Amino acid sequence: MSEHRILVTYLTQAKDLNQKAESIAVGMTVGSWTELPAAKQAELKPYLGEAVSATPLETLENGETRGLITVSYPTRNFTNDIPSLLTGIFGKLSMDGKIKLVDVSFPESFLGTFPGPKYGIDGLRNRLDAHNRPLLMSIFKSCLGLPFDDLKTQFRAQALGGVDLVKDDEIFFADERAPFLERIKAFKQIAIETEEEIGKPVLYAANLTGPVNELNEKAKRAIDAGADCLLFNVLAFGFDALHRLAADPDVHVPIMAHPALAGAYYPSPDYGIATPLLLGKLMRIAGADLVLFPSPYGNVALNKTEALQLAENLTAPLEGIRRSFPVPSAGIHPGLVPQLFADFGLDQIVNAGGGIHGHPGGATAGAKAFVAATLAVTAGKTLQEAAEGSSELAVALTKWGGGR
Amino acid sequence: MSEHRILVTYLTQAKDLNQKAESIAVGMTVGSWTELPAAKQAELKPYLGEAVSATPLETLENGETRGLITVSYPTRNFTNDIPSLLTGIFGKLSMDGKIKLVDVSFPESFLGTFPGPKYGIDGLRNRLDAHNRPLLMSIFKSCLGLPFDDLKTQFRAQALGGVDLVKDDEIFFADERAPFLERIKAFKQIAIETEEEIGKPVLYAANLTGPVNELNEKAKRAIDAGADCLLFNVLAFGFDALHRLAADPDVHVPIMAHPALAGAYYPSPDYGIATPLLLGKLMRIAGADLVLFPSPYGNVALNKTEALQLAENLTAPLEGIRRSFPVPSAGIHPGLVPQLFADFGLDQIVNAGGGIHGHPGGATAGAKAFVAATLAVTAGKTLQEAAEGSSELAVALTKWGGGR
Repeated sequence: MSEHRILVTYLTQAKDLNQKAESIAVGMTVGSWTELPAAKQAELKPYLGEAVSATPLETLENGETRGLITVSYPTRNFTNDIPSLLTGIFGKLSMDGKIKLVDVSFPESFLGTFPGPKYGIDGLRNRLDAHNRPLLMSIFKSCLGLPFDDLKTQFRAQALGGVDLVKDDEIFFADERAPFLERIKAFKQIAIETEEEIGKPVLYAANLTGPVNELNEKAKRAIDAGADCLLFNVLAFGFDALHRLAADPDVHVPIMAHPALAGAYYPSPDYGIATPLLLGKLMRIAGADLVLFPSPYGNVALNKTEALQLAENLTAPLEGIRRSFPVPSAGIHPGLVPQLFADFGLDQIVNAGGGIHGHPGGATAGAKAFVAATLAVTAGKTLQEAAEGSSELAVALTKWGGGR
Repeated sequence: MSEHRILVTYLTQAKDLNQKAESIAVGMTVGSWTELPAAKQAELKPYLGEAVSATPLETLENGETRGLITVSYPTRNFTNDIPSLLTGIFGKLSMDGKIKLVDVSFPESFLGTFPGPKYGIDGLRNRLDAHNRPLLMSIFKSCLGLPFDDLKTQFRAQALGGVDLVKDDEIFFADERAPFLERIKAFKQIAIETEEEIGKPVLYAANLTGPVNELNEKAKRAIDAGADCLLFNVLAFGFDALHRLAADPDVHVPIMAHPALAGAYYPSPDYGIATPLLLGKLMRIAGADLVLFPSPYGNVALNKTEALQLAENLTAPLEGIRRSFPVPSAGIHPGLVPQLFADFGLDQIVNAGGGIHGHPGGATAGAKAFVAATLAVTAGKTLQEAAEGSSELAVALTKWGGGR
């Protein structure tokens, strides 16, 4: 790939895919071409998009061909941020019939201007001193409207079970009963206590909310109050807000990207932005240390190929950009841990809500069951074997099944 | 509607729509309900969503019913911003099967916390001293890569034709050849000159770009440099960025919302966010004075019912919130002005690019043709009648047809 061109792949349909690619290459850059005088063409050539390839997938009943097309754009057409990128490659094009933004490949010269994760997989592992195993995260059963004391009780119960992280609900914006800075301080104190009790640290991911132009300052206040990690609804606030948090040296805690609203973009086969790009590459280059996404299990789930590609995009080598932790979420119970491990490997975060709080023995037991399951798979044991040494895991397997 | 509840309507499908509405009402608020002890239920009741209605539309082959469901949410569940709102009513739900966010009705108590347009239709008309007619806007033929002098020539030509506004291309982020503040100053000077020549003011809408947490400061520098209006890619930067610009008393120019990326949300019948909400209500409450959206004409166009509802949402009375100018865009030529007038009425902005620059007599003649067409329809004349007094309009009608 040219050092100064961005390759963009779309899924679309047209009578002539090559012609469509040409039309996009011109229409999304210099706007018109053939009618320009030669002198103007020479002047604008450096800004011109170029059709790179067209790959037919199927012929439709209306005679059109459905397929992938790739267009290259000069990096000079963009400022180094995701609003510029998305507007330039998909802004008006998104409204121009059936077309889905599928993938983007960046040259190093462009990537180098993005922050990427400040910690990434290795940084977070070092911070937790947790190597050679998937990490484990627990979600509050609910947050909205709960009295502060209930949240403290929930936090302690989860931490005592040995999870590595506990995160807020993503809908936790109105938090008068347990205000942001106050709960960060309180949970930090509980985390210190539980670490003394069980010898294992736990990070609390507080939901960062507020006016978008004040988020960096609020994040710094959170860190001053003891925040270890920040949960962030990236799509609700925009990728650039994540970028600015990640690029700020004073925001020195990992950032966890929540996929809220992602379903407004990715599920249609004809429109929107594919998840491996939306929740994979874009989240990573903008600076998410951890990225939640719908797991490929359960009733309503992400397509497995897409989920695996998404995780691959978070973890594959990318020049100068750290790796982000994949966090396949929803419908996770201890019996699924071998499947998770087989699909996503060591470098993932096992994340559960109902699978922890719904344990018959309570959240601490629920977390312990996951810890046992996680240690089992990394040691090459079956869950049945591990359940012999963990009554909590045995109870979980009885309730939810699974394992092997 | 209750004074303190937000009504949210979704288009979805389920075996039992009522049950689905119930499930959303609980799942998107307190998370679980029936298993809670009575004391907890009493405590969390004020935060509980409620199923309001279910309207079946059709029975599907799989036995499910497709239809509209309405759920009410307490305003106390949200902070007063669109990230909180969208995350709370559609965040994880967007990823939960076929469901589209269709409409939201706000109580006054919630609306009152949003800025809405600072100028709106009346404020912009006063600023231009242009009443009782649609306004007219022209788009640069292209911006990216063009030498500054070419842009100045384009600006002058459009202004001399009598348009009310000239806007940047939305993809104009990388602007080294005509930097933001410098071109604002230059075009302001040209606008002063053309107003002296033709006795009519013109506003230049400069594309506001940059780090999202620095946009307000950049907007103020633009205003100091003479900016009359700001173009803003709201969806690329997030609704909250618009909100913070509109709420900032020092950003005292109208804001024009561009719909770039909207097609990633609205076209699917099964997923996403409907345009009348996305580009209508949400843009308005967040503070857009003018809102561009795809016109219902041309090859690829917005569904007409949706386009009209969108415009209605921008202009219908909304307690405490000013009206936004609808700007139906794309595929507009002078011959379409009677149709635009019939569909969108007096309070709209006629917006053209190719329909102005493609005029055989050049951009000034193209703009004059639109001025003549606009004056004709507001005076109740046909375009043919008006063309007798405007050679530019006659030429345009010959080229593009239309009129009546």
